[in-house]
Amino acid sequence: MMMSTEQSRIPYLNHKIILASKSPRRIALLKQLGITFEVAAYEVDESFPANLHAAAAVRFIAEKKARAFTGTIEADQLLVAADTVVVHDGCIMGKPTSEAHASKLLERLSGTAHEVITAVAIRQPNDAIYLFHEITEVQFRELTAEEIAYYLRHYQPYDKAGSYGIQEWIGLAAVERINGPYTNVVGLPTAALCVALQQLTTR
Amino acid sequence: MMMSTEQSRIPYLNHKIILASKSPRRIALLKQLGITFEVAAYEVDESFPANLHAAAAVRFIAEKKARAFTGTIEADQLLVAADTVVVHDGCIMGKPTSEAHASKLLERLSGTAHEVITAVAIRQPNDAIYLFHEITEVQFRELTAEEIAYYLRHYQPYDKAGSYGIQEWIGLAAVERINGPYTNVVGLPTAALCVALQQLTTR
Repeated sequence: MMMSTEQSRIPYLNHKIILASKSPRRIALLKQLGITFEVAAYEVDESFPANLHAAAAVRFIAEKKARAFTGTIEADQLLVAADTVVVHDGCIMGKPTSEAHASKLLERLSGTAHEVITAVAIRQPNDAIYLFHEITEVQFRELTAEEIAYYLRHYQPYDKAGSYGIQEWIGLAAVERINGPYTNVVGLPTAALCVALQQLTTR
Repeated sequence: MMMSTEQSRIPYLNHKIILASKSPRRIALLKQLGITFEVAAYEVDESFPANLHAAAAVRFIAEKKARAFTGTIEADQLLVAADTVVVHDGCIMGKPTSEAHASKLLERLSGTAHEVITAVAIRQPNDAIYLFHEITEVQFRELTAEEIAYYLRHYQPYDKAGSYGIQEWIGLAAVERINGPYTNVVGLPTAALCVALQQLTTR
């Protein structure tokens, strides 16, 4: 692959990444970052010890996803796993199981703030794990029943924590403000990921 | 046009908007909102009295853009004009005039926080103006000279205040966090716009 002079001087753009996630949002973000990567999709049990608070739980799951990779991480590769949760009123909100459940979750988010936490686990060839997480506060305005129905009819947020995608209609129409990294809400805190990869690739 | 039942019950989706902006980002945001609109593109002198502070200046320009429309606003229409500025160290940063200028602006943003202010002026058929603005703080991490060169080579941010687009590579790689509405940084505070249109269309 031909690289421009500038690109070759940006270490995190030159490393080979194995993305341990089949999330279309994470794939799109890595593509837009210009990072060279392949996708390793495998199922991981996402349960966690019940006594963990939210940030510890999401870090636990991200590390479990990184550890579950059974292939080889070559000397010029890094494996990136991530997990995202929505925390509302101190509880982790799951992914919706039906339209009625999705509607109920969005009614709870309406007019309130919640936190989105994404943890990232970077596994190195020597199996060391570099683990970090970012928190973003998200404020929704009050939604009408018609707005919730309109969103659920046009989008299918059933694979999404908290039952919404900030990059979709509801993010534009109803998210009044955020405090933290934007891409963290999409599913991957990209600027922090660049900093982490930079550190791991220039040692 | 056929509308779903839900859509017909969301008043701001049913009104006809005249968008007084040819910004591709504002056009894309209104499209994604599902709002029916046409674009009225005309040139407006964007100068403002030198004694105005940043928020007053951007409100002044947005109102001037709305007032400059010489066509007719029909009874079922609203005209939406907007202006966005980047404020750094108390000064309004302009749009870059050359690659060297763009590079200089990004060097100044590197490793610091700045504010993005977008003002929106909604002109009604009776020529009354509904004016508001939103402020978003944006924190950049330190950029290397190679990262700035890479961004300027792959994107041409010469039509953008502050010389960057948050939705582009640099937004993913270098924006550590924001505090405020995300779409406000793109060029139009969409959730606040929905609330304003809702108020103006359900009177």
